[in-house]
Amino acid sequence: MAQDLASVAADKTKAELALLRGLLEHGLLIDCGVPGIYGRGPVFEDTLQRFNDFVSRLTVHDQATPLHFPPVMNRTYMERVDYLESFPHLAGIIFSFKGTDLQHHELVSKVRAGEDWSQLQSMTEVVLTPAACHPLYPICTGTLPESGKLIDLTSYCFRHEPSPDPARMQMFRMREHVRMGKPDAVVAWREMWMERGIALLKDLGLDAYLVAANDPFFGRGGRMLAVNQREQQLKFEIVTPITSSEIPTAIMSFNYHQDHFSKLYDIRSSDGETAHTACLGFGLERIMIALFKTHGFAPARWPAAVRQKLWP
Amino acid sequence: MAQDLASVAADKTKAELALLRGLLEHGLLIDCGVPGIYGRGPVFEDTLQRFNDFVSRLTVHDQATPLHFPPVMNRTYMERVDYLESFPHLAGIIFSFKGTDLQHHELVSKVRAGEDWSQLQSMTEVVLTPAACHPLYPICTGTLPESGKLIDLTSYCFRHEPSPDPARMQMFRMREHVRMGKPDAVVAWREMWMERGIALLKDLGLDAYLVAANDPFFGRGGRMLAVNQREQQLKFEIVTPITSSEIPTAIMSFNYHQDHFSKLYDIRSSDGETAHTACLGFGLERIMIALFKTHGFAPARWPAAVRQKLWP
Repeated sequence: MAQDLASVAADKTKAELALLRGLLEHGLLIDCGVPGIYGRGPVFEDTLQRFNDFVSRLTVHDQATPLHFPPVMNRTYMERVDYLESFPHLAGIIFSFKGTDLQHHELVSKVRAGEDWSQLQSMTEVVLTPAACHPLYPICTGTLPESGKLIDLTSYCFRHEPSPDPARMQMFRMREHVRMGKPDAVVAWREMWMERGIALLKDLGLDAYLVAANDPFFGRGGRMLAVNQREQQLKFEIVTPITSSEIPTAIMSFNYHQDHFSKLYDIRSSDGETAHTACLGFGLERIMIALFKTHGFAPARWPAAVRQKLWP
Repeated sequence: MAQDLASVAADKTKAELALLRGLLEHGLLIDCGVPGIYGRGPVFEDTLQRFNDFVSRLTVHDQATPLHFPPVMNRTYMERVDYLESFPHLAGIIFSFKGTDLQHHELVSKVRAGEDWSQLQSMTEVVLTPAACHPLYPICTGTLPESGKLIDLTSYCFRHEPSPDPARMQMFRMREHVRMGKPDAVVAWREMWMERGIALLKDLGLDAYLVAANDPFFGRGGRMLAVNQREQQLKFEIVTPITSSEIPTAIMSFNYHQDHFSKLYDIRSSDGETAHTACLGFGLERIMIALFKTHGFAPARWPAAVRQKLWP
């Protein structure tokens, strides 16, 4: 069994490298010298925007409010939600130079000599956004309307996990719908989206299915958090085989936060009770890569039924 | 005279605070608790995309190649172009946690106690992109086609300069066209754009004019760099009064790099000579803010001639 797992993992790594090579050779991604940081070529980017438009058309009657946040946020937001307890290894903290002219000389000498210059940097008040919805909760303090709220967000997100897998980027775009309101309404919304999400991805010819999931919590203490999350069925993912059928890749995820964010930021339903929140996220780059892997590197030759959805 | 300058600066600060308040009250920007980091409301974001589309329509015959890079890039790119010599105070360097379970406990305790936890972070191999074109040059090594290259890029850019001025954000979007080729062709392209840029902004009802400029180089040594840049006329900006007519705000900039990037990354013209490069950048958020300041907070009531350009 251990042998089997090792060989599945080895096969997956081989498939990841082959897929990355294909994406680079076809100009879909552009090598930038760091695993997980890629430029996007014209065809990749155009197809991604087409997918985004497809989602917008499908959800137009939901009347979600579109908000937009930059990919950098207030550091206190990350501190308050215990992100550094759960995912310290993935977080990106922004440092800058706050020194004198003299220290600047030292900095420049070290950079030129190829020496470590990290001690000449100081922590700033901002961090990279780890998930599109993180900047949203702090601005929602107060009482929600009777029917709650539905927000549509897209943001670049950062996870420090350098990997040869093109479907595991350090910087990628996540489109999220976030629902806030009474617990029943939030749960019903999540259930509705599970079916809708699978249908949407199947319409694009992807072999997509739902699984219970957990976040990649850090360290020994993290194991218990992962078990709890699964037992309470707080996280589901829609996965599809990209580089392995045994270890499929999550391309959409559903997180039910219960009152985690609302308690912290005092978000209340119209009845005065602490609201519940849930979000669904599309991993935009991952969905693109699943489509390129499934249908080939040239969208012009994708199946007519898929093209019809994206180029209506 | 010193008195005058001080009073101009004081008036500008008052105007910045009033403008920020107006943008927040009308839901155009959203306060995120850090100066220079704002959410964008639906109207702000829609108008920004309309401006982007307007630029795309105007430049469609230029046939620029659209490339896209994430807002985080290879740290060695920043080190090699001497960015840390010129702008160490503006750079954003990404740190992350690489410690043990024990150090993780220490990190979490410090975060909870509100103590400094910066010593538990290590420098990563990535930094925030300071200008949209920085990730481009390293991937252009080699010989250009006879007519050179023209690239169209949009990226979030980071500058660590917290300010109450809504037109001086820490994280903002820059759309750039980058021209590479023989020196004459690059200079001619820059001249063409100076006129075109002013015409484009005047068409939107902005009082825009061209000025020679320099970058905000750091420290004592930086003064000489600034003087050189002005003397050689390497940087021009199109400015418009937003919060002061005496101290207008740059909303477009033109940088002629000569062979700075091409020598570093061995970019050659078809004749084998080191190529020259230049770029023009639209400060998308600044242009939006100039429009809101000039025409009011409700685009529905903007002058018909301006609306026609953006909502054709």
